[in-house]
Amino acid sequence: MVVKINENYLKLKSSYLFVEVARREAEFIKNNPEANVIKMGIGDVTKPLVPAVVKAFSDAVDEMGKAETFMGYGPEQGYEFLAQAIVENDFEKYGISLDTSEVFISDGAKCDTGNIQEIFGIDNKIAVTDPVYTVYVDTNVMAGRTGEMEDGMYEGLTYLKCNAENGFVPELPDEPVDLIYLCYPNNPTGTTLTKDQLKVFVDYAKENKAIILFDAAYEAFINEDDVPHSIYEIEGAKEVAIEFRSFSKTAGFTGTRCAYTVVPKELMGYDSEGNEVEINPLWNRRQTTKFNGVSYPVQKAAEATYSEEGKKQIKEVVDYYMANAKVIRDSLTDLGLEVYGGVSSPYIWVKAPNNMDSWAFFDLLLNEANVIGTPGSGFGPSGEGYLRLTAFNTLENTKEAMDRISKLEF
Amino acid sequence: MVVKINENYLKLKSSYLFVEVARREAEFIKNNPEANVIKMGIGDVTKPLVPAVVKAFSDAVDEMGKAETFMGYGPEQGYEFLAQAIVENDFEKYGISLDTSEVFISDGAKCDTGNIQEIFGIDNKIAVTDPVYTVYVDTNVMAGRTGEMEDGMYEGLTYLKCNAENGFVPELPDEPVDLIYLCYPNNPTGTTLTKDQLKVFVDYAKENKAIILFDAAYEAFINEDDVPHSIYEIEGAKEVAIEFRSFSKTAGFTGTRCAYTVVPKELMGYDSEGNEVEINPLWNRRQTTKFNGVSYPVQKAAEATYSEEGKKQIKEVVDYYMANAKVIRDSLTDLGLEVYGGVSSPYIWVKAPNNMDSWAFFDLLLNEANVIGTPGSGFGPSGEGYLRLTAFNTLENTKEAMDRISKLEF
Repeated sequence: MVVKINENYLKLKSSYLFVEVARREAEFIKNNPEANVIKMGIGDVTKPLVPAVVKAFSDAVDEMGKAETFMGYGPEQGYEFLAQAIVENDFEKYGISLDTSEVFISDGAKCDTGNIQEIFGIDNKIAVTDPVYTVYVDTNVMAGRTGEMEDGMYEGLTYLKCNAENGFVPELPDEPVDLIYLCYPNNPTGTTLTKDQLKVFVDYAKENKAIILFDAAYEAFINEDDVPHSIYEIEGAKEVAIEFRSFSKTAGFTGTRCAYTVVPKELMGYDSEGNEVEINPLWNRRQTTKFNGVSYPVQKAAEATYSEEGKKQIKEVVDYYMANAKVIRDSLTDLGLEVYGGVSSPYIWVKAPNNMDSWAFFDLLLNEANVIGTPGSGFGPSGEGYLRLTAFNTLENTKEAMDRISKLEF
Repeated sequence: MVVKINENYLKLKSSYLFVEVARREAEFIKNNPEANVIKMGIGDVTKPLVPAVVKAFSDAVDEMGKAETFMGYGPEQGYEFLAQAIVENDFEKYGISLDTSEVFISDGAKCDTGNIQEIFGIDNKIAVTDPVYTVYVDTNVMAGRTGEMEDGMYEGLTYLKCNAENGFVPELPDEPVDLIYLCYPNNPTGTTLTKDQLKVFVDYAKENKAIILFDAAYEAFINEDDVPHSIYEIEGAKEVAIEFRSFSKTAGFTGTRCAYTVVPKELMGYDSEGNEVEINPLWNRRQTTKFNGVSYPVQKAAEATYSEEGKKQIKEVVDYYMANAKVIRDSLTDLGLEVYGGVSSPYIWVKAPNNMDSWAFFDLLLNEANVIGTPGSGFGPSGEGYLRLTAFNTLENTKEAMDRISKLEF
C-alpha cells in the first residue's frame, strides 16, 4: 500500500489563461516601459466598499472586541438576520417566497458552485455551456465525472454551444443530462436569457428529472425587463433549480467574501432505487460538516447592502460600471465590430474582426492600443474568435482605451 | 436518466450529539426555570478579540472603504504578509524553515481538514483515532471511502483506540493504512503526544509511504516542553505530513474565521503506476479552483496576532483559559475522579465514576450540579464512559461549577 493521489487532478489542463495573459502583459511592459497599459481583462471590481457597508462592517468589528457583544461560532448556514434580509430584498420583490432555511450563506459563489457537485452522484451526466466559467467544469473533472480533454472539451461532458449563430442562447442538450450549469447574465459573454428562454430549460429539467445549477452572480447588472433576476421567477423552478448569488460584483465584495446559495425545500434528487431524496438537507449536511460559517463582521457588512442607504450607494456604483459598459459597447459598435453583452452585464464580448483568432486580437489590442482583454478561447472552443472586455475600470481609462482602439485599422 | 444524489450521505449518522445535549438542556431548563446552568460543553471561546487584533481588523475595514487602498480579489492561498508572519512566528522559532508557498491560508481548520481528502484517491485506507473529531470521519464517509456504520464505527475505516489503558497514546495500525488523521493536543481528550510518541507515527508513515494529516488547532495551549508544537519538529516529517492550524482557539477567531494548512514541497503521493506526485501543487489546484481566499480585513486581523502587543494580549487570554483548566483538573482530582488532559489543552476528559456511562454522568451533572458537559461516547466507542469539559467559561462560573460538583456524592 502507498498513499494514492486523486488522479482526476492529472486530467486538468493547467489554468494557463490568466497566466498567459499576465506573461504577455509583463513582456510588453518590459519592452515598452513608457506605455500606459489599460487593463480591461480581469473581472475584479475597483470601486471601494460603500460607506453604509463600511460602517456596518466596522461596527461589527467593534462588537467583536467587547465581551458583551463578542460573537463566537455562528450558524454554518449564516445568521438569520442576513438570510432574512436576502429573502425580503432579493426575492420577495419578484414575488418569490423563500424560507430562510432555504438560504445558505457562504464565503463565495466560486466555492458554492464548485462544492455543489459533491452532493450529487458521480454517475450523473453534466451539461455546461460553451464558453463557460471554468470552475463548473474543473470541479467535475476533479470529482471524476469526465474523461480526458480533447479539442478543448472533456470527454463525458455535454457542451451547449453559445455563439452569434444562436444568439448566445444554448439549445437543449441532444442527449439526456442530469445536471445543467447555467450562468445568466453570462460570464464570459455578458449575454442574458429572457424568461421564455429560461423556461425552456426549467421545463426540460422537470420533464427529465434533471437539476439546473443557476449562477446569478451578475444579477445586479440586469437592466432589461424581460430578463429574470432569479430562476425562481419561472414557474415551477423551485422543483428543479439551485440558485447561486454573490455580493462580489454587486457590492464590491471580491476581497470581503460573501455569497449565498438557495436550495428550495421542493427540490428533489433520487437514490439508486429511484426514491425521491430532498436536496436541501444534503446541502445542509455538506455545509455543516465542511464549513464553519462566514465571518460575523462580513455578514453584518452584507446585511448593510440592503439598508436604504446601502442600496442607494450600491446602485450608484453599479450605474458607474454600466456607464463604462455603454461606452465600450457604443465605441466598438461605431467601429463596425460585432459586440455582445454589456447591456445587463459588466462583460462585453467582442468578435475579433477579419476572422482573427482570440489571441491574435488580444495581441493586436495590447501592442497597438495598449489595452488588455481576455481571449475568449480560454473559456472554451466556442469562445475562439472572441475577446472579453470588462466595465470595471475607471470611466477615464475606459474612454481612453476606446479612443485608442478607435484609431486602429482593422 | 434522473439526477442521482451522492448516496454516501445516507450512510452518515445524524450528528445527534450536540442536538441531544441541547435537547436535554432545554428540557431541564423548562422544568427548572430558576436553575443557573453552567455550560462547559461546547468548544467555543468566550473572550473577545484582543485590542491589537480589533485595531488591525478595523483599520483594514477602513482601507476597504477608500479607492486608494481598496482590496479586490486576493490570492486564493492568502496574502504574503500573513504567510510570512506565520512562517516566522509559528515555525522558525522551533527551528522549522518553511517557504510561504507551503502555507495555504483559509477560513477554517474544519474546512481544511474536511476538504483535504479530496486530493487523495478514493481507494486509500484511512486511520483515525477513537475517540475522534468527527469531521475527519464524516468527510471520508461522504466521499465514499467507507461502508455502513456498525457498533459506532464505519466499515472500512481503521480506528486507533485511545483510552486510559494505553495512556491515550494510539498504537500503530495493525493493518496497512495510507492516511492517518492525528489531532494533538487532542480534541476531545485534551491529551498530548511527546516528540518520541509522535516520531513513531512519522517513522511508520515513511516506511509505509503513508501521509499523516496532523491537526494542531490547539497548539497555543501547549505547556509542556516535550510536547511538539508542530509535527515538523520531528525529523523527516515534511516528507510525510500535512499540518493544520487555526486562529480560532488561539486568538478567539471562532466567529472571525481564519486558519491555515502547511503542505511541504517534499511531500509526495503516488499515482496508480507508483510514480511520485507532489502534493503541494494538488492542494494549490484544489484551493485555487474551489476557494477564493480569506477576507482581506480578516487576514490583517490574523497578522496582528503576531505583533508584540498582539502576542502579549493573546497569551493573557490563553493563560486565563488554562487557569480555568487547572481549576477543573485540581477540583475533580481532589474528588478522586480520573482526569485527563487540561495541562496542554483547554479540554478535560473525565472518567465517569462507578462505571457510569457517558450519558448517565452527563445527566447526573446536569440534574444535580446544573453543569453541562459533552458525553464522550459522542466522539466514538472508546469515548464511552467519559465526559468532556472545556475551560472556555469564565473563571467565576468554572469555580462555581466545581463547587457544585464537589458537593455531589458519587
